[in-house]
Amino acid sequence: MAFDPANYFGFLLGGAEAAKLPLALLLVFGGAKLLNEIFEYFKQPGIIGEILAGVLIGPTVLNWVQPNEVLTALAELGAMFLLFRVGLEVKVSELMKVGRTALIVAILGVVLPFMAGWGIMRLWGEPSVESIFVGAAMVATSVGITAQVLSAKGLLSHRASQIILAAAIIDDVLGLLVLAVVSGLAKGAVNFADLGMTIFIALTFTVVVAHFGARIAKRVVPMLGGTLNAAEAQFNLALVHLFGLALLAVYAGVAAIIGAFLAGMAVGESVEHRVHDLSQGITEFLTPFFLAGIGLHLDLQALNSADTMLLAAVLVIAAVFSKMVGCGLGAWSLGKADMLRIGAGMVPRGEVGMVVAQLGLTLGVISGPIYGVVVVMAIATTMVAPPLLNLTYRDVTRGVPVEQFDVG
Amino acid sequence: MAFDPANYFGFLLGGAEAAKLPLALLLVFGGAKLLNEIFEYFKQPGIIGEILAGVLIGPTVLNWVQPNEVLTALAELGAMFLLFRVGLEVKVSELMKVGRTALIVAILGVVLPFMAGWGIMRLWGEPSVESIFVGAAMVATSVGITAQVLSAKGLLSHRASQIILAAAIIDDVLGLLVLAVVSGLAKGAVNFADLGMTIFIALTFTVVVAHFGARIAKRVVPMLGGTLNAAEAQFNLALVHLFGLALLAVYAGVAAIIGAFLAGMAVGESVEHRVHDLSQGITEFLTPFFLAGIGLHLDLQALNSADTMLLAAVLVIAAVFSKMVGCGLGAWSLGKADMLRIGAGMVPRGEVGMVVAQLGLTLGVISGPIYGVVVVMAIATTMVAPPLLNLTYRDVTRGVPVEQFDVG
Repeated sequence: MAFDPANYFGFLLGGAEAAKLPLALLLVFGGAKLLNEIFEYFKQPGIIGEILAGVLIGPTVLNWVQPNEVLTALAELGAMFLLFRVGLEVKVSELMKVGRTALIVAILGVVLPFMAGWGIMRLWGEPSVESIFVGAAMVATSVGITAQVLSAKGLLSHRASQIILAAAIIDDVLGLLVLAVVSGLAKGAVNFADLGMTIFIALTFTVVVAHFGARIAKRVVPMLGGTLNAAEAQFNLALVHLFGLALLAVYAGVAAIIGAFLAGMAVGESVEHRVHDLSQGITEFLTPFFLAGIGLHLDLQALNSADTMLLAAVLVIAAVFSKMVGCGLGAWSLGKADMLRIGAGMVPRGEVGMVVAQLGLTLGVISGPIYGVVVVMAIATTMVAPPLLNLTYRDVTRGVPVEQFDVG
Repeated sequence: MAFDPANYFGFLLGGAEAAKLPLALLLVFGGAKLLNEIFEYFKQPGIIGEILAGVLIGPTVLNWVQPNEVLTALAELGAMFLLFRVGLEVKVSELMKVGRTALIVAILGVVLPFMAGWGIMRLWGEPSVESIFVGAAMVATSVGITAQVLSAKGLLSHRASQIILAAAIIDDVLGLLVLAVVSGLAKGAVNFADLGMTIFIALTFTVVVAHFGARIAKRVVPMLGGTLNAAEAQFNLALVHLFGLALLAVYAGVAAIIGAFLAGMAVGESVEHRVHDLSQGITEFLTPFFLAGIGLHLDLQALNSADTMLLAAVLVIAAVFSKMVGCGLGAWSLGKADMLRIGAGMVPRGEVGMVVAQLGLTLGVISGPIYGVVVVMAIATTMVAPPLLNLTYRDVTRGVPVEQFDVG
């Protein structure tokens, strides 16, 4: 009797459709964790293994998994929970202390990469608006990867780490400003009223939540503890708070993950330890989707000529050095070791750079190949950060290998 | 200065698109938890509140949230983790002990509802194939809700609960058999070779995993404990195992949640307690998406005539009683109290009934209104189960109100 699998599955409940979700979960999660273990076995950062797993199973190499709406949502959720959990460990008061240094770090870390990106594109003979867009895409740091590395090593309370986190928030607001001006230019006119309103809303949101969030949570959370099943009720409230602030952050013009980070900081000192544990499970589950998701978006087909490849290489190098030098200079007063750490921590551009490039593509001001180059830049800077952080924080971790600092 | 929100959001990063995910998360999770608290405040089952939250924010009432791919995936994930965690608490050896009773419970719980559904449709003057499909949609128990209620009350180790879980697995295999025959009839011919192969694969998968899973895990897991960061590594392996068995279950023709349940049972006795805790966080987060997701699918527009409404009411009553009587009779030897408990636990049809109706719609053998009626039946039986379980397990919980038995 001939057994035809295609015919067979067709007649089952849901068939191939029902297999889609568990198959994607297995390939992305299993692949990421497998490459993580292999990398750590060879004393390499496991996080790079997880991103490479995405490259491997994604369209560039095996094409087993394509980025889709569900995987994108899981990746976004993963980044949100990652930043939420990092927020839980960070105290607003500590972050405020390093505020002034963080502000200079963020400003120089925006100016230099913009100049570098714009300058290189102009020298390459590209049009003015396209060059400005590439400059803008080089601006925004995506703090997810750095937060994951520092959290896994137990280094979140280090002075340099605190400055990185504070500077990443400010950087996000500055990135919004740059993007607003740039997309105004692309459309032919910058609306300064809208621009002022945007910056005002973003700043108000961030400052108000950062300043009052923890104080309010400290009063509200204990009130609930008495009336409800404490830890689970607190956890549910913390999640509502997380989703609510992520949404408000988007409405205010900053990234959802900034809202998630602020939400974590606000409740971190008020909730029971069990809330940290419960969030930990979700983060463990979702982080591989965030990391492998970055790799899934890599499309090496875009680098279809020697010229484009060279441009990509030049931009990657410029992106790394301009951010390291800019942010490093901003932390001049702290000495060489912390300057390097802060510079390294701000290098990853991740998904924010990709979104800017996407917008440029939609507005018709950047071309397909340049879009591909920006995506390569965003992913490459993200992959270069974990080893740079290992190197620059080497003295703090005193040579203990990475895998012994696992999360938990 | 006029401030136009639509124009404003359009120029932000991602704009309304970026707000979509956090907005859906906030509405579904927040809504479900809010109604849960309100229901429990009034001493009603919180789980019903969560389903009603889906009805309320869904297309039927407020239309704030529409079922989409991402929410459906989160709901599926929620059901998978729910069953996985229930599996962690259940011992295969205990389940095997009640195997014979569970088999009779499952068989009678399939025969009576099928007869009831088919008979009512025929009496209503509906065509033969349509009647058979409605009968088939009445067959399959969806054990998610029952598992959630019993787990929250700490009643999973009760004899009646064990029989419900074992019978639900057998019921799923029987449901596959019924569906295979029925869709064969709809297509004009039953392929007995395919049918035999399907049942053989499904049975082999279930028996092999149930029988050998725990034994293999007991040997493999301790081997890993020494070499890797124990709890997190075990957790990652447990998740890979979960996704892998869910996928194999779908390939074998049974529901993904049955694979998830078997995966939980296999590793439950081998992994550290911290793995339970980490899974707990994910389940807490995802269960509201499963519960509210059921409510989101309700579309009362389908009940557009008095005739259809009456049919829906009759089918709901028949679905509840036929399952209670069938499964109850199967547990005759255990006495009245356990008969009622087992009957009540097997009542929910949930998403399985909806999938059968969907298939009938796709094959063109059932009409739109009848599809709507089956969906109403599936949701109504799911909502009636928690109060029935509260009532029938009342003596075991000795009158202590539900909210004191919260998960954890």
